[in-house]
Amino acid sequence: MSDSWINETLYPDWGQRFRVKRELARVRSDFQDIVVFESESHGGVLVLDGAVQITERDEFVYQEMLTHVPLLAHPDARRVLIIGAGDGGVLRRVLQHDTVEKAVMVEIDGAVIELSKKHLPGIAGDAWNDPRADVIVGDGIDYVAKADDGAFDVIIVDSTDPIGVGEVLFTDAFYRDCARILSKEGLIVNQCGVPFMQADELRETSLRRAKFFPHVSAYVAAVPTYVGGFMTLGVAAKGEAPSRQTTEQIRARAEKAGILGTTRYWTPEIHTGAFNLPPYIAENLPSKNA
Amino acid sequence: MSDSWINETLYPDWGQRFRVKRELARVRSDFQDIVVFESESHGGVLVLDGAVQITERDEFVYQEMLTHVPLLAHPDARRVLIIGAGDGGVLRRVLQHDTVEKAVMVEIDGAVIELSKKHLPGIAGDAWNDPRADVIVGDGIDYVAKADDGAFDVIIVDSTDPIGVGEVLFTDAFYRDCARILSKEGLIVNQCGVPFMQADELRETSLRRAKFFPHVSAYVAAVPTYVGGFMTLGVAAKGEAPSRQTTEQIRARAEKAGILGTTRYWTPEIHTGAFNLPPYIAENLPSKNA
Repeated sequence: MSDSWINETLYPDWGQRFRVKRELARVRSDFQDIVVFESESHGGVLVLDGAVQITERDEFVYQEMLTHVPLLAHPDARRVLIIGAGDGGVLRRVLQHDTVEKAVMVEIDGAVIELSKKHLPGIAGDAWNDPRADVIVGDGIDYVAKADDGAFDVIIVDSTDPIGVGEVLFTDAFYRDCARILSKEGLIVNQCGVPFMQADELRETSLRRAKFFPHVSAYVAAVPTYVGGFMTLGVAAKGEAPSRQTTEQIRARAEKAGILGTTRYWTPEIHTGAFNLPPYIAENLPSKNA
Repeated sequence: MSDSWINETLYPDWGQRFRVKRELARVRSDFQDIVVFESESHGGVLVLDGAVQITERDEFVYQEMLTHVPLLAHPDARRVLIIGAGDGGVLRRVLQHDTVEKAVMVEIDGAVIELSKKHLPGIAGDAWNDPRADVIVGDGIDYVAKADDGAFDVIIVDSTDPIGVGEVLFTDAFYRDCARILSKEGLIVNQCGVPFMQADELRETSLRRAKFFPHVSAYVAAVPTYVGGFMTLGVAAKGEAPSRQTTEQIRARAEKAGILGTTRYWTPEIHTGAFNLPPYIAENLPSKNA
């Protein structure tokens, strides 16, 4: 067995490490350092600037919660914009919804897409070839600035943490444009980090989103390789408040979309329950679940 | 800043590591290897046989969920038996319940108690001196074999994983005795590991508990330093099924016990929601939440 390890360097004093079976790629793209390796424990692993983004073995947790929650929190999500998510896992989950008519994915770093297609093909499956998919290598900020008013029902932001290339996805200007290009019942979700380690992320982006959306809340997911307890996904909505929907509402929508029974983490009960935040997390939101 | 790290060795191919500020103790007791150190990120950390047991910074998650859920799932918990939990954190949480009249704690390794008192005093606080507490250094298996029928309302097993010294706490004989010494509405909770990494623990102990208790289920908690996503706490009950209680029931009991508003992770909503298991965890239980 190999005795080569890769340490995550996201936090200076604590983190996870993987025993490496085989390194698959190590490149410096125009935007970031990219490492892809095969681990002994988690299959293929994608690392950007030292932070683990996805592993083949646990990606289902993050992708299901980042996708199914916003799509089913919307009463009729047909047009979806994905920003980031170059591995294609969110695109695949979005397209599982029979009710989705169009999914535009804008990833700034084409190298992430290419390396994922080559080394982690199972994460996206054949989503790349779905006729409803429009995959753009480009700047998400730019895309939302130019998109038409009301063009999308749901925006999913699958960014890195608000350092490096992902930083501009956490600004006022970005959220203002997102609010504009969302339809009347539109909503946006973005990853807000692991509050036990990075409480600022949730606090600051929640305040920012509250400037442009009437409903701002967050929900949790226990992602095995986003170590540090619950990660939070921040949601901001123009229409229904996602935190106040019932399990029965969500189940009915999931049935219509063809999602029931396809998941390994998400269920209607987990969906609605995920908005109940532990106090140590809730204290970072502007007010109690809106 | 120190460049000394301690790696958790629980899993051979993956794990967490801590930057060490200062090593406080490293001893071989009669039962296990014990390391206590001050980390840069999590305050004091207790490690037994290479596995992280508790850190000062995140202990609240585990202790609150291991204690408040069973005590409030019981309609009238007055007499509580704690097995293991030498750091005293469970004892402290049990005694926070004004309704508890007696808490017996049986820890096999006196060295864990002594080192915790010396180096991690905040975890137990002054629970050691509470007149309701009876702290015994001894064998939990032996204690439950000799205890009177119906002597306890709740048993909390805070063991290491079912390897090494904790192994005997996962046997038929142990659960049979626990069922006998519990009162009519009695229930037992024990940690069942992190299913993403150790699914066998939940599967096997659930089958075992089902031989002696009518209701067997499990609930989840996202403990930052039990890395690998949700950990599960297995519960087996002679009376009410804990998985079927309502948030309102639990809130009323918590109010009576003086627990509402004292917690940083547990809430009545988190309590009842924690029994909704992701499918990847639920598949390890003998049947759907009983």
